[in-house]
Amino acid sequence: MSYDTENIFAKILRDEIPSVRVYEDDHTVALMDIMPRVDGHVLVIPKTPARNILDATPQQLATCMETVQKVSLAAKEAFNAEGITLQQFNEAVGGQEIFHLHFHILPRHEGVKPRPPASEMAKPEVLQEHAAKIRAVLEK
Amino acid sequence: MSYDTENIFAKILRDEIPSVRVYEDDHTVALMDIMPRVDGHVLVIPKTPARNILDATPQQLATCMETVQKVSLAAKEAFNAEGITLQQFNEAVGGQEIFHLHFHILPRHEGVKPRPPASEMAKPEVLQEHAAKIRAVLEK
Repeated sequence: MSYDTENIFAKILRDEIPSVRVYEDDHTVALMDIMPRVDGHVLVIPKTPARNILDATPQQLATCMETVQKVSLAAKEAFNAEGITLQQFNEAVGGQEIFHLHFHILPRHEGVKPRPPASEMAKPEVLQEHAAKIRAVLEK
Repeated sequence: MSYDTENIFAKILRDEIPSVRVYEDDHTVALMDIMPRVDGHVLVIPKTPARNILDATPQQLATCMETVQKVSLAAKEAFNAEGITLQQFNEAVGGQEIFHLHFHILPRHEGVKPRPPASEMAKPEVLQEHAAKIRAVLEK
């Protein structure tokens, strides 16, 4: 399967559509999921094209995981979470909806079940507030 | 949280308890989940201690992801899967049951819902047969 340059994350990376970013480095961007399954649901994507882990380069995977770790630790602290669930979907049958490699970081709390995927759009001001909490930990 | 050297994967790595391995290199091991959620459910673990992604080194994460990719491609082909779901759990609330870093690779097929986690022990001969299918692709 080839990479579609018109996918949402490609457009976000080209600043053609807005996003709420929590972290960025030379290789990766971390942004708030606009339909969060839990509070603090962050996505990590590479800046370069990859459809998913089936065609990614080792460097894309390694740099994404460095950012996944960094943001997971920050989100855990920012939301006083007790754990993190990491999910990554490949192809539609594997759960993938946007065909640019992305990792889902879900801060978890005892007794709080994640909402179903893509069930509810978050208010922009809530996403901004949640992103600010994570950024505050990253900038400490 | 500290690393418990008596966890099941530490014992497997010391060959104190058996496992059905599909792949091994200097840094990682891929083995069949004994309670598979789908056929071909494989786990990837680092050979060195790490509780989960919250305390892993960048090198552990990078080498695990290289193996995750390799085994995902092989398992997809071996099981004629249409997608791969990758999951990785951190701390009990995040879904973690064994406290040695591990990634779950689930080959997916249209209309086949994964069984709940840890719901049914697979027969050893079935795991051996499934592992052989994946190894055959890896050895091509």
